[in-house]
Amino acid sequence: MKKSLGAATIILPVPVWVIGTYDARGKPNAMTAAWAGVCCSDPPCVAVSLRAATYTHGNIKRRKAFTISVPSEEYLKEADYFGIVSGRDTDKFAATGLTPVKSDLVDAPYVKEFPLILECKLLHTFEIGIHTQFVGEIADVKADKEVLGEDGYPDIEKAQPIVYTPMARTYHGIGKYLGRGFSVGRKI
Amino acid sequence: MKKSLGAATIILPVPVWVIGTYDARGKPNAMTAAWAGVCCSDPPCVAVSLRAATYTHGNIKRRKAFTISVPSEEYLKEADYFGIVSGRDTDKFAATGLTPVKSDLVDAPYVKEFPLILECKLLHTFEIGIHTQFVGEIADVKADKEVLGEDGYPDIEKAQPIVYTPMARTYHGIGKYLGRGFSVGRKI
Repeated sequence: MKKSLGAATIILPVPVWVIGTYDARGKPNAMTAAWAGVCCSDPPCVAVSLRAATYTHGNIKRRKAFTISVPSEEYLKEADYFGIVSGRDTDKFAATGLTPVKSDLVDAPYVKEFPLILECKLLHTFEIGIHTQFVGEIADVKADKEVLGEDGYPDIEKAQPIVYTPMARTYHGIGKYLGRGFSVGRKI
Repeated sequence: MKKSLGAATIILPVPVWVIGTYDARGKPNAMTAAWAGVCCSDPPCVAVSLRAATYTHGNIKRRKAFTISVPSEEYLKEADYFGIVSGRDTDKFAATGLTPVKSDLVDAPYVKEFPLILECKLLHTFEIGIHTQFVGEIADVKADKEVLGEDGYPDIEKAQPIVYTPMARTYHGIGKYLGRGFSVGRKI
């Protein structure tokens, strides 16, 4: 018997992604978002939902671009900080000591120290409710060589991304390998 | 120095969610999706992107509803299977032995054996590229009591959701507790 928890955004797992933007004066900003996901394979797109009150919201509207930097476990503290304070009154890169790198493809900065980054051009803006959903077309993905597997793609055990739990507000790392996609189910 | 991996949907982590729908004749179907995420807090909404070729795509268009059932690790094989075969020519519930439960709130079934489920009414349909993004308003969230923490919300260590890695096509479990959201970053 399942217990009703009400109409709320209670779901598992959600990602911890850091959205990089420039403000009107060119100051780099970084904001952590968990209301996000891949939304199309071709063109390759990701969707990120932000409230209009956030500094990043205005930055994306103006610059038509953003990046996603995926923090590894070791940058948990910085990733959480990026979600707590506003770029309106804080230089978050200066405060954390992390390094903004200007994308050569889109008008936005990414976080140098994070192992996996996506550079996105704003493709669609959808108003859903208190959140605006920004759909970004992925212009390029870049990764540190140290996190790539033998197949040339990011290895999740090396990249060590963080998983977030809404409501309980907990962060977890990636656990044990369970199996291969489009493979383990063939036994049925 | 980061290596360019090209314009592709290479990002970590992405979820493993099973989308429940009814077809035109009322046959329950389940399909696994990873191109998905929360997209609004109020109204509470999730977005799921599907190709028009999928059986689930037509079902959602017709019934204006879907569920998300979050499989725990022990149902990895079934979750992978749900993403391999099509409901057009297969009764996936019969093949796996899992139990479809008719939602009393929306016109869609969920998977009884999975610990966390969301019942969603179709709110928006956005065409992005080869994927259609379905935005569902969450009517209710239901969870097995066994996976709830002391705060009454799902405990990710108990629910044991699965994480997927695009390209490398690997499934992983949830790892160690790293810290608390809106808390660990305050040290900066």
